[in-house]
Amino acid sequence: MSVRPATSGGPLAENARIAVIGERGAPHDLLLLAEEVGTELARRNAILICGGMGGVMEAASRGCRNAGGLVVGILPTESAQDANPYVSIPVVTGMGEGRNIIVVRSAQAVIAIGGSYGTLSEIAFALRLEIPVIGLRTWVFSRERGESDRIVRVADAKAAVERALSARG
Amino acid sequence: MSVRPATSGGPLAENARIAVIGERGAPHDLLLLAEEVGTELARRNAILICGGMGGVMEAASRGCRNAGGLVVGILPTESAQDANPYVSIPVVTGMGEGRNIIVVRSAQAVIAIGGSYGTLSEIAFALRLEIPVIGLRTWVFSRERGESDRIVRVADAKAAVERALSARG
Amino acid sequence: MSVRPATSGGPLAENARIAVIGERGAPHDLLLLAEEVGTELARRNAILICGGMGGVMEAASRGCRNAGGLVVGILPTESAQDANPYVSIPVVTGMGEGRNIIVVRSAQAVIAIGGSYGTLSEIAFALRLEIPVIGLRTWVFSRERGESDRIVRVADAKAAVERALSARG
Amino acid sequence: MSVRPATSGGPLAENARIAVIGERGAPHDLLLLAEEVGTELARRNAILICGGMGGVMEAASRGCRNAGGLVVGILPTESAQDANPYVSIPVVTGMGEGRNIIVVRSAQAVIAIGGSYGTLSEIAFALRLEIPVIGLRTWVFSRERGESDRIVRVADAKAAVERALSARG
Repeated sequence: MSVRPATSGGPLAENARIAVIGERGAPHDLLLLAEEVGTELARRNAILICGGMGGVMEAASRGCRNAGGLVVGILPTESAQDANPYVSIPVVTGMGEGRNIIVVRSAQAVIAIGGSYGTLSEIAFALRLEIPVIGLRTWVFSRERGESDRIVRVADAKAAVERALSARG
Repeated sequence: MSVRPATSGGPLAENARIAVIGERGAPHDLLLLAEEVGTELARRNAILICGGMGGVMEAASRGCRNAGGLVVGILPTESAQDANPYVSIPVVTGMGEGRNIIVVRSAQAVIAIGGSYGTLSEIAFALRLEIPVIGLRTWVFSRERGESDRIVRVADAKAAVERALSARG
Repeated sequence: MSVRPATSGGPLAENARIAVIGERGAPHDLLLLAEEVGTELARRNAILICGGMGGVMEAASRGCRNAGGLVVGILPTESAQDANPYVSIPVVTGMGEGRNIIVVRSAQAVIAIGGSYGTLSEIAFALRLEIPVIGLRTWVFSRERGESDRIVRVADAKAAVERALSARG
Repeated sequence: MSVRPATSGGPLAENARIAVIGERGAPHDLLLLAEEVGTELARRNAILICGGMGGVMEAASRGCRNAGGLVVGILPTESAQDANPYVSIPVVTGMGEGRNIIVVRSAQAVIAIGGSYGTLSEIAFALRLEIPVIGLRTWVFSRERGESDRIVRVADAKAAVERALSARG
């Protein structure tokens, strides 16, 4: 595995930890985007955190893993066997969708790609916990009283990773 | 406690279980709405499920309890002492915001009143799990690709309870 | 439902909340014990908290419910339909065995009847959280360095409920 | 980071994942044991999974990390900052002791060193889930009806790692 510590001799904990979130049933164009984001994260030496399953999660994992990166998959099921084949480290929660908040909490920034209601729950948790959210063609929302949604919207994978890395605390 | 079984001699499990969700820091007008919703739920003999803390949760609990209803508070903290004083039954999760999904899963329908990002996470989970969501001046959202958000929007407390009771499975 | 507030006009929150824990596949004699414990809890006006499933959980629920008590079932599954028929209020966690700690945290004292490894995890959590554990023919354990296990062992259902009620904080 | 895939070119997922569990307040001799276990796990190219905090968790993490291994810390708190300094990858649950089951579920075998009640809860979950438990001076227990506790007891760190690696499914 080729993940290098951010500083020579320093702890891996100093590598950025970026979550990529998105749905299992995403269309092809979003999967391509997710794979590019994964590749770019590996190039920038960041650790990819995701829900460990298929769709956007698998595409991002594949991009990251094939570029030599490290992929943490925080699984909803009760078995590590359920992880997509590109997950380096399966974390097995057995909590179903209850694991969404752990994906978010474990990251320093979140990249949301498209997304289902599960993805929306993760975006909401990230904003609640003040973790930066970078959006690629994802949810738009507002309260009736009209606040902005605080998602940083970008146009491509490279910009997403760039913004995620600079936005983390 | 005056909660009556839905059918004479039948199990309490047949009483409706309706979640009321909303933020701690809600403005006065939303608190009044929440209290009315709680009162109406008790009148209709439904069990109120909520996050057990202050703001919208406490106002709804007060309305329900004062009208003789039963309030289940699913707490984020590690102590039953943290429940608002109108909670009949504190469920102590110690899971922080991770408990949001339990509030939603335990209900047959959800009434969202205003709301913060925590509330948005609960709405998202409910829609993900196909539990009906009734909205009183709450979040509006859409995907970039433009789907509707499937929230049933109503204008007052009575309509909210009416729709929640008829929408549950 | 005949649960009376502990003090006239006072909150139901003042009723004792006692967890009964034990395995699904318990032998007949333990099921009889569990049912008696449930009955006795209802007579003493305590709320029964349990895991909501079969075996010891169902026997205790039946005893409590048939004597007019209130039963909270904290379920491991994703559906309220999975609760045993005596549960008054299903709390649906979707967390599998991860819900064990919530059963324990929500109680003021725990009565352990026989038990599998799942029960042992609950006893351990209770002792960790300094919640009193009353044991009816349950696990015996010690560290190699030889400490006692701090379970209060009793001989029958009545004594178990008596000790649980007096031990709660 | 020097963790090598188990087979050249193969996935890191093929590296063994072994949990080390034990208490924060362990005596010095147990900390030495834990550090040796961590070192031995790194030498055998296994990934160490632990609760990420101090005491036995930190000693095992230090041994593993200093020998070039990878340490996953599944934290009870809400911040990655709370991890001990040898954790490579913090997983932030915010679930308190509720995270214990995730530590266990994510491992193929568990090495228990000494231990508090929290450790006992983890041993119980492992046995419940049929994950092998190797014990170094840890809990001894039995049901009143007298079953054995199914822990494989060993005398030193090397034997513990050897048995954990051979016992995993």
